[in-house]
Amino acid sequence: MGNDKKLVEAITSMEEDFAQWYTDVVKKAELVQYSSIKGCMIIRPNGYAIWECIQKELDSRFKETGVENVYMPMFIPESLLQKEKDHVEGFAPEVAWVTQGGLEPLSERLCVRPTSETLFCDFYKDIIQSYRDLPKCYNQWCSVVRWEKTTRPFLRSMEFLWQEGHTVHATAEDAEERTVQMLNVYADFCEQVLAIPMIKGRKTEKEKFAGALATYTIEALMHDGKALQSGTSHNFGDGFAKAFGIQYTDKENKLQYAYQTSWGLSTRIIGAIIMVHGDNSGLVLPPRIAPVQGMIVPIAQHKEGVLDAAFALQDRLLKAGFRVKTDDSDKTPGWKFAEQEIKGIPVRIELGPKDIEAGQAVIVRRDTRDKITVPLEAIETELERILSQMQSDMLERARKHRDSHTFEARSYEEFKDIIANKPGFVKAMWCEDQECELKIKEDTTATSRCMPFEQEKISDVCVCCGKPAKKLVYWGKAY
Amino acid sequence: MGNDKKLVEAITSMEEDFAQWYTDVVKKAELVQYSSIKGCMIIRPNGYAIWECIQKELDSRFKETGVENVYMPMFIPESLLQKEKDHVEGFAPEVAWVTQGGLEPLSERLCVRPTSETLFCDFYKDIIQSYRDLPKCYNQWCSVVRWEKTTRPFLRSMEFLWQEGHTVHATAEDAEERTVQMLNVYADFCEQVLAIPMIKGRKTEKEKFAGALATYTIEALMHDGKALQSGTSHNFGDGFAKAFGIQYTDKENKLQYAYQTSWGLSTRIIGAIIMVHGDNSGLVLPPRIAPVQGMIVPIAQHKEGVLDAAFALQDRLLKAGFRVKTDDSDKTPGWKFAEQEIKGIPVRIELGPKDIEAGQAVIVRRDTRDKITVPLEAIETELERILSQMQSDMLERARKHRDSHTFEARSYEEFKDIIANKPGFVKAMWCEDQECELKIKEDTTATSRCMPFEQEKISDVCVCCGKPAKKLVYWGKAY
Repeated sequence: MGNDKKLVEAITSMEEDFAQWYTDVVKKAELVQYSSIKGCMIIRPNGYAIWECIQKELDSRFKETGVENVYMPMFIPESLLQKEKDHVEGFAPEVAWVTQGGLEPLSERLCVRPTSETLFCDFYKDIIQSYRDLPKCYNQWCSVVRWEKTTRPFLRSMEFLWQEGHTVHATAEDAEERTVQMLNVYADFCEQVLAIPMIKGRKTEKEKFAGALATYTIEALMHDGKALQSGTSHNFGDGFAKAFGIQYTDKENKLQYAYQTSWGLSTRIIGAIIMVHGDNSGLVLPPRIAPVQGMIVPIAQHKEGVLDAAFALQDRLLKAGFRVKTDDSDKTPGWKFAEQEIKGIPVRIELGPKDIEAGQAVIVRRDTRDKITVPLEAIETELERILSQMQSDMLERARKHRDSHTFEARSYEEFKDIIANKPGFVKAMWCEDQECELKIKEDTTATSRCMPFEQEKISDVCVCCGKPAKKLVYWGKAY
Repeated sequence: MGNDKKLVEAITSMEEDFAQWYTDVVKKAELVQYSSIKGCMIIRPNGYAIWECIQKELDSRFKETGVENVYMPMFIPESLLQKEKDHVEGFAPEVAWVTQGGLEPLSERLCVRPTSETLFCDFYKDIIQSYRDLPKCYNQWCSVVRWEKTTRPFLRSMEFLWQEGHTVHATAEDAEERTVQMLNVYADFCEQVLAIPMIKGRKTEKEKFAGALATYTIEALMHDGKALQSGTSHNFGDGFAKAFGIQYTDKENKLQYAYQTSWGLSTRIIGAIIMVHGDNSGLVLPPRIAPVQGMIVPIAQHKEGVLDAAFALQDRLLKAGFRVKTDDSDKTPGWKFAEQEIKGIPVRIELGPKDIEAGQAVIVRRDTRDKITVPLEAIETELERILSQMQSDMLERARKHRDSHTFEARSYEEFKDIIANKPGFVKAMWCEDQECELKIKEDTTATSRCMPFEQEKISDVCVCCGKPAKKLVYWGKAY
């Protein structure tokens, strides 16, 4: 992209066409570039830096709970994938197959991992013998491949980056505890760092992971009222252990099957950041996850002392632990402002000759555009206060948006009306019969997002069939 | 592996069988587990933690030179791989081919990246238009696949982890400068952090990277006298730019081809750490790269106050920035010592009732087994001093070993005698004729490792053919 095109006007407004707005933001903020491999994306420096911040934050939260990182092969022999019946049925239709290695055809096809349960199980069966070897809490950061027909940057692509944790425990209770623990790690991270409030709940039988006993999920609401499944945590019970023969001798020297979990969060979450916080000027990054938190923009930078003052300020702020840069390019200030806005940098710090004379700088918030004049001598404290205010305002705004787009339906007519006319979550009671779930999907395209941990009883009967209700469910159209 | 087997006796001595010693260390230190996919390894927590330390150190050194991280797809369409003739000839025989996606055969085969020059070129041609877009210095951390017949953990495996940097520049000079700069980053990192001294030099035409103008390398000498190529940096000139059409308009608005480099370092370097520093008790990790620098071993831990004192000491040392752990398992101290030794933890810190009473601890160095009694009140300073001494001693020892295993040959008889009887590097003059290089390899199995940057003239004639010599070359048997 040349430097001579107008940047801001190139973004379609989200009210006009939300899908196009998303694509524009992803491209103009230089997060992603399409590659010549259909369905695969190139993650550019601006996008990858966000992923690095996510990795750093999540990885240290994982390690605090005793998780260790490993690396497993990217290939799975066909026979290994087939060991757990439900699992292979869920994944085989969407994997890529390697059939030739070097110049020779392979005697057994290898699939490129769509997820690594089977590899971890094969590994765990070899290294676990005794109760002393438990628990094992391993995780890997890697890419996986799923052969998707329709793809969108971050939201759905043939190859994506993620982490997948796989744990083994002595008891069913330990496995359940770990499953919920990791879901909470995800939810806390999303709220505290990404400023995205999450609904925590359990997936229905229909929506659970292939091979799992129970799948827990965090669900977020995007600006257009669609839901995004943002992370999942699965309790496998002893199903995989029985399929793969993962057994240990307990303290009484008796052979027992082990219990397992897995949990994953992917680059998809970057799509959530864009669609929860972005606006018609581009990306808006929460300060805690922004690779660059502040862009210093010198005003009239040709004047003596301005650039020096800008770089001196940068040094001070870097030393205080802020992630800041200075834009000393030969572009106009207006141009620099537009670029900072498109890229979602939380604040810009304007510094011109008059500011320097007055011993001040002007901090402009990306989300509200508030201009705050602060004394240079106290800029560290002021910047900290502004960023932290912005972080909590963004969470609050996202929460308000979600709550004001969460509806309750007590009759099927009401349910269909809301889905058709009011984008958002619909809370409604359900009888737990899969027939109703399928009917709702067919009639409205809405799917069950989760049975929230915080159950309420808003009616006695299923919103679809009128039989006695068993669960409150969040429903919605989803990415 | 059960806890009841003897750990130390399971390691073959390196004098007896170096290859078996290597395999034993890799397994007993729990760095790697073989997987059910032939030639692919599982990197276990102890191994992966070393790679994480390497990544952290190298990544920050890269970023200091202006490098940004990205992520490229793992698949390369066959037509893209074929765009640069030398490159495809070098790699096509050793790649894995994906021929089916989901339930359908692909119209074009995709190879799993063996390296990503072609993908980066395809990307760069789209995003580079003007001299203002240059340089571009991108890097990615990922895994790559090369269909190798004989594999060994870390040293040669079908899939391995690495980083690959790919840069684009306006001029040939800028590209050459970046190529050498990154080689120096590698060499400095290896010496300062891994305590492995490197010979820096240029590869011969025969040994250079497929598609490169020039390949620079760092070469290390292993304990058995074999060489290990530890990192390479390639100058591509404008060859790839011409094949892929990477052009920019210069300040005079004229269209120019760009100049490129690439450089990579892989998990192979973990093999170098093992084979340079290890001994017959197992791994020995340099303190600067050790994931755990010190293991606190409580003595008579059942006695009152011992475990409390051990954990208090751990807290103090963690707070001071050391990476330490406490082994409070129910194993015997002797067992814990053996484990610390096998895993290569730089020091153990013994703390028993008598030590506590005397206000001291005993620090035992892994490399020399020196026992140093230090007062608890000054333990931070003492530990820092001991680790830093150990780090420099390890580099010095490795340098001495290398220098005492580096020989000079002035005649072909002498050359053959050294290669046959004295493991190590051989410095010898060469006429630059590939015939001689091929003959030497055929006669002795030794290969040219590099033409060192620090050229000397130890004779006037080629060690092989006797014609006038042009270059001093390091030769050796290599992994």
